[in-house]
Amino acid sequence: MKLAVVGVGLIGGSFALALKQAKLATQVVGVGRNAANLKLALERGAIDSIAPDPATAARGADLILVATPVAQFPSVFASLADAKAVITDGGSTKRDVIAAARKALGKKVAQFVPAHPIAGAENSGVGAASAELFRNRRVVLTPLRENSKPDIAKVEAAWSACGARVSRMDPEEHDAVLATVSHLPHVLAYALVHGVAKRNNSEQLFSFAAGGFRDFTRIASSHPEMWRDICLANRDRVLQELKSYANELGSIRKLIQKGDAAGLEKVFAAAREARNKWIRSS
Amino acid sequence: MKLAVVGVGLIGGSFALALKQAKLATQVVGVGRNAANLKLALERGAIDSIAPDPATAARGADLILVATPVAQFPSVFASLADAKAVITDGGSTKRDVIAAARKALGKKVAQFVPAHPIAGAENSGVGAASAELFRNRRVVLTPLRENSKPDIAKVEAAWSACGARVSRMDPEEHDAVLATVSHLPHVLAYALVHGVAKRNNSEQLFSFAAGGFRDFTRIASSHPEMWRDICLANRDRVLQELKSYANELGSIRKLIQKGDAAGLEKVFAAAREARNKWIRSS
Repeated sequence: MKLAVVGVGLIGGSFALALKQAKLATQVVGVGRNAANLKLALERGAIDSIAPDPATAARGADLILVATPVAQFPSVFASLADAKAVITDGGSTKRDVIAAARKALGKKVAQFVPAHPIAGAENSGVGAASAELFRNRRVVLTPLRENSKPDIAKVEAAWSACGARVSRMDPEEHDAVLATVSHLPHVLAYALVHGVAKRNNSEQLFSFAAGGFRDFTRIASSHPEMWRDICLANRDRVLQELKSYANELGSIRKLIQKGDAAGLEKVFAAAREARNKWIRSS
Repeated sequence: MKLAVVGVGLIGGSFALALKQAKLATQVVGVGRNAANLKLALERGAIDSIAPDPATAARGADLILVATPVAQFPSVFASLADAKAVITDGGSTKRDVIAAARKALGKKVAQFVPAHPIAGAENSGVGAASAELFRNRRVVLTPLRENSKPDIAKVEAAWSACGARVSRMDPEEHDAVLATVSHLPHVLAYALVHGVAKRNNSEQLFSFAAGGFRDFTRIASSHPEMWRDICLANRDRVLQELKSYANELGSIRKLIQKGDAAGLEKVFAAAREARNKWIRSS
């Protein structure tokens, strides 16, 4: 199988490495904005050649992965309007990606089987890529009514070959669920670090931050451009989550203000219990 | 040296184990509310005997560590009103602890050298204790004007023997700094998990939560009673931090609402840069 990867970063590079390791992809062509990153992708064996644009990369490909930041998807899809291969993607949001695909691809949107690999790391670029990134991670497919069964099966087989646990979901539901458990926490972590960093005594503050702060803010080391795009692409859902979180925080603030020890302990204990239950089951 | 530990949990148990390992404490007596936990402390060798109350434990002790949740400090200090030993503590807040000590100990507050070991874990109880818990961690002393130099030196030597990096700070400053880098993040993590747990589709939501959510919420598995006490003991500072965080979040919400991509990326990039700089230097 010939694979074309548009955006050879953490996700695109890992997909290529995993499919090569699984002997599913025999040849990989990469497209990207950053020449140094593409050179590293060649050196790491993630790709075998470089194409100047998605249209060129798509020629002769059996499968195309679009794994750029989501804001670039419209122009990438436009460049793929003549592609014959099945297309999948690695975008963290699905409604906007599907809308962009419909707009650029027209009827050929039937070739596009949307996917979201729920795997990532705070490091970006092909240097952080790994054939093992998707192992035992979830990949959510949000198939379109236009997709053929063989095309869905092909995309599902590719992600499964990466070691991922593949499931299916409605795009609306996907964007709502991910806003809660992924997009919101990223915004919260960025907000905490930004709020600390802009203070006059930020150096002192950081010097007394310990393991809790480090883990809480790990995702604030994530790719700013990628998360900017996700927040804007999933804007309505992210805003809804921010509102709901502000309400939750407001309730806790009131408990602290009133000195309601029992109420406060109840909230904290319920949270601990829910988290521990989740950790045990996952 | 004979050591008395009031509250033989994660902090108290680790202090005892570390001072025994350093051959600084030859005998440790423990006091606690939970008989099973005290039995485990004996089995683990953290303590050598059990006393029924702080006053009894203090008899003949050279050093007393108070390491209960902070809400119990007033009654513990009252029980230590006749103690002859130097007293230190493991409380995460310092203004309230010092006020409680002054009230209960009167002139004998001179024997109390307040300390905050900035080390912890989401697990609690002596089962999670370790002689290595404080190694390379910060311990902040907030000495009182009444403390004698030898008493401060004795407490500093004990924490240093645990492998900690000991520094000194004003209690006001301590509570402000810790509210920002520790108390606030704990409240934020509890709020996120609580907000998810109470939804109808919480099971689905948790099942799509990944590594980012896990690390972000690790501190939401912390001891609910301990964090209830900290939030109430440091109420003014925690409320101030919640307000400042709500403002920060409000600014980000506005950027998302306006679709201000450049502004959003600027905030995220500044946060990432600040965090990465801190991680590199720590």
